[in-house]
Amino acid sequence: MGSPERISNVAKRVAKWHRAGHQMVVVPSAMSGETNRLLGLAKELAPNLISDAYHRELDMLASTGEQASSALLAIALQAQGIDAISYAGWQVPIKTNSAFTKARIESIDDKRVMADLNQGRVVIITGFQGVDEMGNITTLGRGGSDTSAVAVAAALKAKECLIYTDVDGVYTTDPRIVPLAKRLMTVSFEEMLEMASMGSKVLQIRSVEFAGKYKVPLRVLSSFTDWDIDLEEEARSGTLISFEEDEKMEQAIVSGIAFNRDEAKISVLGVPDKPGIAYQILGAVAQANIEVDMIIQNISKDGKTDFSFTVHRNDYAKTLDILKSKVLPELGATEVVGDTQTCKVSIVGIGMRSHVGIASKMFQTLSQEGINIQMISTSEIKTSVVIDEKYMELAVRALHKTFDLDQVQA
Amino acid sequence: MGSPERISNVAKRVAKWHRAGHQMVVVPSAMSGETNRLLGLAKELAPNLISDAYHRELDMLASTGEQASSALLAIALQAQGIDAISYAGWQVPIKTNSAFTKARIESIDDKRVMADLNQGRVVIITGFQGVDEMGNITTLGRGGSDTSAVAVAAALKAKECLIYTDVDGVYTTDPRIVPLAKRLMTVSFEEMLEMASMGSKVLQIRSVEFAGKYKVPLRVLSSFTDWDIDLEEEARSGTLISFEEDEKMEQAIVSGIAFNRDEAKISVLGVPDKPGIAYQILGAVAQANIEVDMIIQNISKDGKTDFSFTVHRNDYAKTLDILKSKVLPELGATEVVGDTQTCKVSIVGIGMRSHVGIASKMFQTLSQEGINIQMISTSEIKTSVVIDEKYMELAVRALHKTFDLDQVQA
Repeated sequence: MGSPERISNVAKRVAKWHRAGHQMVVVPSAMSGETNRLLGLAKELAPNLISDAYHRELDMLASTGEQASSALLAIALQAQGIDAISYAGWQVPIKTNSAFTKARIESIDDKRVMADLNQGRVVIITGFQGVDEMGNITTLGRGGSDTSAVAVAAALKAKECLIYTDVDGVYTTDPRIVPLAKRLMTVSFEEMLEMASMGSKVLQIRSVEFAGKYKVPLRVLSSFTDWDIDLEEEARSGTLISFEEDEKMEQAIVSGIAFNRDEAKISVLGVPDKPGIAYQILGAVAQANIEVDMIIQNISKDGKTDFSFTVHRNDYAKTLDILKSKVLPELGATEVVGDTQTCKVSIVGIGMRSHVGIASKMFQTLSQEGINIQMISTSEIKTSVVIDEKYMELAVRALHKTFDLDQVQA
Repeated sequence: MGSPERISNVAKRVAKWHRAGHQMVVVPSAMSGETNRLLGLAKELAPNLISDAYHRELDMLASTGEQASSALLAIALQAQGIDAISYAGWQVPIKTNSAFTKARIESIDDKRVMADLNQGRVVIITGFQGVDEMGNITTLGRGGSDTSAVAVAAALKAKECLIYTDVDGVYTTDPRIVPLAKRLMTVSFEEMLEMASMGSKVLQIRSVEFAGKYKVPLRVLSSFTDWDIDLEEEARSGTLISFEEDEKMEQAIVSGIAFNRDEAKISVLGVPDKPGIAYQILGAVAQANIEVDMIIQNISKDGKTDFSFTVHRNDYAKTLDILKSKVLPELGATEVVGDTQTCKVSIVGIGMRSHVGIASKMFQTLSQEGINIQMISTSEIKTSVVIDEKYMELAVRALHKTFDLDQVQA
């Protein structure tokens, strides 16, 4: 919600749903740019603080953004003749733990909200925030408004949680890479989780996890359609993230091709093959708050093995430094090598569970294109490979075609 | 508080007092322009709403301004190495009635704040707002931050409540009119009330009333002095609004000359002199939410009297209309006359109580200057006259000199 005009359009859209007889709870984010503006002021005043007391004040500060946009949306709805009321997280209350700036929701009281809904009101609840046991305001961290919406939907046992975003759904892959990528009508919760963690930015992974835990049907749809689009059409638009497998009549084996350009590959060579080496290597990396993605250890030869993993490209130099200065000497390993010119490409599909040969079809396709595979890792519904970055687009396009994901052209 | 730099300066000033051993509670207003910005957005979305539900949302919206500035001030203090914590009105809690946008404070819980103070913390409390019995956010209306500060000071039995403003104290009259006007070291609560209601904009009248009710010593001082001004000097600066008469060693008979340019005079002529006429005339005016200031009714002649009062110049036409269309026909009065080219000039002084002849000295001075007096009204510590607007400056200057208020020149 960027401007009065945008808020007014959101209000008209909500009013349309409300007038069609739906009980509506709306969870707005802050007006665009507002959270960054507020946190920028804090940073200017205190460039170096990191205390708990400081994080408490950051939450007091940042939570005002959603409170303002929620009140403005209520006002815009009232201007449409709709009875609307806004609540801050603490008024519901949405109770969280006390981890300021990254709190987790513990419970949501539905009494007040249900009473309003039953009186025909539209209820607006500030996203992104809650209140801890001591009565302090907390925030859920960036992207927390999606998580709030899902949590509220779960608490109220909503029929569906609509997440309006700047994209019109989940695609088989990024349409900027494969123009023939098509929008998925439905995608399973597990597939969505794999896609979200692969860096497709449609939804915060936490909100998807939350939806999975409480079995909240989620629909991702575009906030850029006209507010007066036909309601039935809008209700079918976007992508439904579903929890019932049989909803998908024609289950595709592979639902999408995900990719991630930001991976750097690191291998520790000549590691003595004895218990505890994985912990010795990755423990030091984790302590430095570096997130590790793929981890691969192959069988040993002559009592030595090679241990490989991937980190975000920004953490590459720091990781190498930790390994060389601390880990290698203790471990008696011979060498660390790495490469930042890599990327990860994955095929994701719940149908892979029951179909053999999907991974080998992937490897075959890459081989036909002359692309060398550097690392492989698999899960029940995903197969990922690390390849040279320069082949990324080629690999994604070839796999998209191989697994019949290309849109049928008119 | 207009900018990060200004907030940082407030923090340095507070830190100075804190380090000198004072327990400090700070009640900030919103960053300048913020409240107008937020309410402007609301007005844009809903130009015509006036419901209670709308006012509730306005309070949700406007209260974010003070919450943000309070958190920022806490952060700025933390950056100075001071342990500081901010509370929104509902967290204290500051309980109010449910009159959204113009709520009245009913109680303030001091437990949480006292506990923090006793741990050596600086406590920051959002001005301007509270929470009603149902848990709705309320605001106290414009200028409510001063009232919040006084109310908090009363609840905590503070030694003094310092109100930092854009002036450096209370003057004998407006220095723009009388360059020789001097700053008062102390002024009594009653005098301050008369001066505040006369339109001297130093303090909100509600905050002065509150201070009077709870006997909170108030000091009005400038926020534009350097933050590192000597603390003893700062503690003596500005004007102390005092509740102990004997504090004033040399009681001046007249403390100041107040004036108000915005008054319009209205007279209803030939009113039958019988019980209830004041109510019949002013009841209709009050019903239209028009505030009446001076009211004068002289003795009757031949069973008829003239009834005069003053209203704000902006309400003049509306008042005349009400009188002509409704009141005159019912009353059997003959005529309504009025004048917007008038002003009110008052002498204010607690010493007038015990000194006779002060009013006549005022009238004499005006007469010597050739200024005709149109209306007179008096209270125990004030004498006000309505005169032709064009003589206002002349009258104020002459009275300032007559009552020995001119500064002694070096």
